[in-house]
Amino acid sequence: MKAWEANIRHVTPYTPGEQPDRPDMVKLNTNENPYPPAKEVREALHKMETEALRLYPDPAASQLTNELARFYGLTPEQVFVGVGSDDVLAMCFLTFFNSKKPVLFPDITYSFYHVWAELFGVPYERPALDGRLHLRKEDYYRENGGVIFPNPNAPTGVAEPLSDIEDILEHNTDVIVIVDEAYVDFGARSAISLLETYENLLVVQTFSKSRSLAGLRIGYALGNPALIRALNDVKYSFNSYTLNRPALEAGTAALQNEAYWRKTLAKIVATRERAKKRLAGFGFTFEDSQANFLFVTHPVWKAEPLFLALRKSDIYVRYFKQPRIDNYLRITIGTEKEMERLYTFLEKYQEETGGDVS
Amino acid sequence: MKAWEANIRHVTPYTPGEQPDRPDMVKLNTNENPYPPAKEVREALHKMETEALRLYPDPAASQLTNELARFYGLTPEQVFVGVGSDDVLAMCFLTFFNSKKPVLFPDITYSFYHVWAELFGVPYERPALDGRLHLRKEDYYRENGGVIFPNPNAPTGVAEPLSDIEDILEHNTDVIVIVDEAYVDFGARSAISLLETYENLLVVQTFSKSRSLAGLRIGYALGNPALIRALNDVKYSFNSYTLNRPALEAGTAALQNEAYWRKTLAKIVATRERAKKRLAGFGFTFEDSQANFLFVTHPVWKAEPLFLALRKSDIYVRYFKQPRIDNYLRITIGTEKEMERLYTFLEKYQEETGGDVS
Repeated sequence: MKAWEANIRHVTPYTPGEQPDRPDMVKLNTNENPYPPAKEVREALHKMETEALRLYPDPAASQLTNELARFYGLTPEQVFVGVGSDDVLAMCFLTFFNSKKPVLFPDITYSFYHVWAELFGVPYERPALDGRLHLRKEDYYRENGGVIFPNPNAPTGVAEPLSDIEDILEHNTDVIVIVDEAYVDFGARSAISLLETYENLLVVQTFSKSRSLAGLRIGYALGNPALIRALNDVKYSFNSYTLNRPALEAGTAALQNEAYWRKTLAKIVATRERAKKRLAGFGFTFEDSQANFLFVTHPVWKAEPLFLALRKSDIYVRYFKQPRIDNYLRITIGTEKEMERLYTFLEKYQEETGGDVS
Repeated sequence: MKAWEANIRHVTPYTPGEQPDRPDMVKLNTNENPYPPAKEVREALHKMETEALRLYPDPAASQLTNELARFYGLTPEQVFVGVGSDDVLAMCFLTFFNSKKPVLFPDITYSFYHVWAELFGVPYERPALDGRLHLRKEDYYRENGGVIFPNPNAPTGVAEPLSDIEDILEHNTDVIVIVDEAYVDFGARSAISLLETYENLLVVQTFSKSRSLAGLRIGYALGNPALIRALNDVKYSFNSYTLNRPALEAGTAALQNEAYWRKTLAKIVATRERAKKRLAGFGFTFEDSQANFLFVTHPVWKAEPLFLALRKSDIYVRYFKQPRIDNYLRITIGTEKEMERLYTFLEKYQEETGGDVS
């Protein structure tokens, strides 16, 4: 090792899903929305005054935070925005998890949590999900330095009832509890309604999934003004100007068309419910997903070879080579047409491999 | 204090320059470029396929890093990109400054350095600039945990000769040395030419100043592949997808028109040189700036009341209420027309206050 290498931080980073770009691919691997963003987004970008790009954006992102506050019936002081919910969550780890006691999150969950914990030296423990991939709320009653979990959980898609989340909050009034609601719009109940009661609760959401704007990078946290102020202090100690002008313009525009958003959500939910039937027909089993993906396993077909066979046919799904879930595939809900490609593939796979268990 | 507040990180954030938005304002306070970005930027944004915004951007930002590599005659493995140079520098502090020995930077410099150091718990020392606001290179020969300084320095505009930077590198082969070249295109010599010789050197630049794209948030670091890999590992441990699709498209487009970039730079430099003469005529003194701003003081007019009087006339400059520089103003070089507004104001101010020292 060279002398100058001694002070370099060595970390094992999070591995994002691959981003292939092939002409006829069916991309069901990173939980993107199969439908385009609202037409207001295109209009906002196409009419944008590009001359103004010479000027810094508003560091407070006021137009966007105001619009989010309006949308959710909160005040702007209850809204924090960042470069996707990953940026928001990274800031949360840095801002709120500064205890010597362990932060708690499930053993099967968004695999970025332990990466942030390692990066910032936050101690953590990972209580195991139960056999049906549900959180055991009692695991979160022990002493801790903070709690974070997604609802619905990723990559399982399983949602917990709001009453269980409230039980966890009741047992954790002395730490910050973060509910990561990246997928909440696809069917789970949001904890936003609990913000009034629990001043230590933070709800994190994103434009990447239900609003079809993964490419724009906008995430946000909702919570009491003291938490939002603390997040902003850390943000202004890191990078004053995070959201660029196109993101501010187009993000604000996206919030104008609630009808389109609801229509898109309904289509994805309908396709998901049909997918549950179709995939069950092939013999897959899965817990009931409330997200825009299904987390499936099969009694005969092993997940990894199936993942590779799909990939060869330009159908991309997500496979996690991790303990407890290494025989599962996470399949994003695409358009009906994309899902048909998947079913057609599976019919052929069934013929070839004799995996028919029906 | 409530129990849940105990684990919150408390920091004193960096204060960005104000971002007023008034119809007839002359905005010379945040070192923005007075000229619009290249026409290729507008074209790229207006022809952007907004449907693709539903998909994540390329996490490696390959098209932009490839183009930067081409522009600077480096390999893509030598290029790291982030959400403005502040994001890049924050990542650098987190990645490279992990020693118990102090990181060194000047006492008068970009006031974000000590904010990052405080945020990440990096020890630091600030050797004083000399009486003419130059770095004393010998101050950087002592044992340290890393070195960072801007060249030209901010807010002074003073550039150091490349031979002095090489002397500092010669005395610091065992730590990472970062040269922050946000303003280098306006007249200083870049340390990029030293990258081949010093594998522990990192050069950081930005699209915000010379490329007229402060509103797009793009910064980059150039250095040897081992440093870039370490930066990427930390980046992928923080936020996989930092640059959004509009930034990738428009940033890449901006690099296509080198002629426009050179023309804009020449105009700003010409206006700066005229500004030096005009401001000297009013009795201001300043060191010779190689940046797109002047850092001026006046033997009669106190900086703070002048700052406030300018502000009242919708002419915004930057005033830092800090030891050693609290009688200085930092004035960004605007268009000739904007600068004329400043000179006209000063003529009137001179009449009213009797500050004529010529």
